[in-house]
Amino acid sequence: MAQSVCWSAIAGGVTAPVGFQAAGITAGLKDSGKPDLALLMAPQNAVCAGTFTTSVVRAACVDLCSERLHASNGQCRAVLINSGQANACTGDRGLIDSQRATQALADRVGLSCDQVLICSTGVIGVPIPMQLLLAGLDPLVDALATDGGSAAAAAILTTDLVEKQIALEAEIEGRTVRIGGMAKGSGMIHPDMATMLGYLTCDAGVPPEVWQAMVRRAVQRSFNVITVDGDTSTNDTFLAFAAGEPLPTHQFELLEQGVTLVAQYLARAIARDGEGATCLIEVSVEGAASEAEALQMARTVCGSSLVKTAVHGRDPNWGRIVAAAGRSGVVFDAQVVSLWMGDHQLMQNGQPLGFDRAAVSTYLRQRAEGRYLDDDAVVIRLRVGSGPGQGRAWGCDLSDQYVRINADYTT
Amino acid sequence: MAQSVCWSAIAGGVTAPVGFQAAGITAGLKDSGKPDLALLMAPQNAVCAGTFTTSVVRAACVDLCSERLHASNGQCRAVLINSGQANACTGDRGLIDSQRATQALADRVGLSCDQVLICSTGVIGVPIPMQLLLAGLDPLVDALATDGGSAAAAAILTTDLVEKQIALEAEIEGRTVRIGGMAKGSGMIHPDMATMLGYLTCDAGVPPEVWQAMVRRAVQRSFNVITVDGDTSTNDTFLAFAAGEPLPTHQFELLEQGVTLVAQYLARAIARDGEGATCLIEVSVEGAASEAEALQMARTVCGSSLVKTAVHGRDPNWGRIVAAAGRSGVVFDAQVVSLWMGDHQLMQNGQPLGFDRAAVSTYLRQRAEGRYLDDDAVVIRLRVGSGPGQGRAWGCDLSDQYVRINADYTT
Repeated sequence: MAQSVCWSAIAGGVTAPVGFQAAGITAGLKDSGKPDLALLMAPQNAVCAGTFTTSVVRAACVDLCSERLHASNGQCRAVLINSGQANACTGDRGLIDSQRATQALADRVGLSCDQVLICSTGVIGVPIPMQLLLAGLDPLVDALATDGGSAAAAAILTTDLVEKQIALEAEIEGRTVRIGGMAKGSGMIHPDMATMLGYLTCDAGVPPEVWQAMVRRAVQRSFNVITVDGDTSTNDTFLAFAAGEPLPTHQFELLEQGVTLVAQYLARAIARDGEGATCLIEVSVEGAASEAEALQMARTVCGSSLVKTAVHGRDPNWGRIVAAAGRSGVVFDAQVVSLWMGDHQLMQNGQPLGFDRAAVSTYLRQRAEGRYLDDDAVVIRLRVGSGPGQGRAWGCDLSDQYVRINADYTT
Repeated sequence: MAQSVCWSAIAGGVTAPVGFQAAGITAGLKDSGKPDLALLMAPQNAVCAGTFTTSVVRAACVDLCSERLHASNGQCRAVLINSGQANACTGDRGLIDSQRATQALADRVGLSCDQVLICSTGVIGVPIPMQLLLAGLDPLVDALATDGGSAAAAAILTTDLVEKQIALEAEIEGRTVRIGGMAKGSGMIHPDMATMLGYLTCDAGVPPEVWQAMVRRAVQRSFNVITVDGDTSTNDTFLAFAAGEPLPTHQFELLEQGVTLVAQYLARAIARDGEGATCLIEVSVEGAASEAEALQMARTVCGSSLVKTAVHGRDPNWGRIVAAAGRSGVVFDAQVVSLWMGDHQLMQNGQPLGFDRAAVSTYLRQRAEGRYLDDDAVVIRLRVGSGPGQGRAWGCDLSDQYVRINADYTT
């Protein structure tokens, strides 16, 4: 890309962009007493783009979001988010409850029902306790604030250990543009089209079709290339709002860089906070025939239970990496594969190299101990040929703790 | 099927069929001192069919088997198997070592090198200690015996906890036909085309092309529908030998029933012995458009980490089952799905049913405790429509122990 601007981090999350408001409260939906109801409001003339789970089994709220966005050509302005119940596989009641909740919110914020979206996350098969949700709407609307980003980011979590939010700012030809984001997700993470729940806000105006395409490309390079456990959720939803003075066409590419950075930051944060994870794993593939093939291989290696457990054991069992690449469905010549872990080269042109096993173990251990620093990923790099395709995917290690968390989730 | 015969279990494993010999010894390839070198010999005029891993990264021995079987139209008679080293990703040396080993064996048993196959299993990237293997060939050949099936079944294991072998016998129009089998596999189990290492013997003669097709269909309904951890191996190989008086054409269907039973028994045994597993999981899908779609859905549910951990926790978290089916890539109407665990129905026509959570937990616990009995599988049954397609897949639960085994494998 020829052009580039400097995006710097600022505070505020989804409410950092001008005109956006958010709130998060405790409505009693979770037994834990933690915040469980969030609201994000976009200013007038906002454009919303969404990408959703590709699963055949979708929660009613996903259908509702997708239909309303399509019918209104992206003219939606509010999204209500409850955590604790996924409201998926709840039969007819699922859709009725989603409609009632959005209607009740619409009445309170002066919007038509068609402009209000809803996302749910939590246990599948469990409906939303509607009385509690409806009783929470007044205090939720009262709590709406231009600095409510953090409260909202906290209220959308389930098994997550940390909040996931970010905001970036750049000066584009004299104008300040801000992009904010928040997400949740820790298990059932293997998005296919979008992610768990993710939200992005932007205070620059972009035409709906341009915004939708821009968001889809950013999702392809972020939420769609992370994996925690290979399971695609019934509720995966990513919603991105753009509202503000229209941006000139020649600045779209610059804006897309920022949108992609925010999406990648959130996606990495989800992978790093994967259930039971002790470290982030980044798999980078180069020399593939296309970006799509590179991403497919990277994602397969990231998703391999054997690679994940080896990294958890700080064990440079590199054969598992090459084996996972081999079953990715991408055809390549095993005789030209080269492999690195960090700066340590383990394989060249299909031949295993002698390497210092203790040093690579130390590399894995040190990366894991640096959790939550910027450069904490265990980096696995594969060169599979001399093609132009490259891509990166993110995942996490697989620990005993993952099993414990998931063996005991509903009981 | 119109015809049917009664197949009953007999002793002897792969050496139960008349004319077959086998041996298993300790050649010192494994640090543990356990048996690690096996040999299976088929009688003259044997026909061998093979199916192999679909991974792009294949061990040299897989290439060698596949090429020799093809070149000889299945006229191979011996297979040497070493455990401890996969001899995959070992560069040029991998093929040279495989050729040397088979040539050395051929010289000792009076066959041409082209009639001898080799399979390796163990750590990827580690070559075979050739001096030890070559020194082991004389004692191995000396140990060949018509009751050597058990010794061979023991010598091919790696992280397996139990030997996996079986033999069946049936009376077909006055003639006794025997089929034997053995297999190994416990991790890196998600075969695609064949399995880990599996061997089948049969003392009835069948033309090569009929045998190959029969074996391929049996593999499709057995080894290809089991999963332990979603990782396809570099070394997956299934070899099936048929040798004896030719069977009349009209009896092929009866023989195929026996071949399928043996293959399914071995496949289930691999899933049940999955690394760290406490129970076998059987997922049965009915009402799909085709058998292929039913198998795809069943296999996806079996492979879901979230389903596997829920079963490990004896937790009837059925939403995860429906969610996994939803991402299987098969299109179906979520509004017609019905779901059972054992005899407990949890969902009907897309609507969740009230059910006795404690009773289903007890069902899961009791099935797991019955390990190694015939009816020990946790049975999950999905009806997804009214189509004719049905299929079953097998897997196992995911435990903390799986993580420990795989985090510490090479270190």
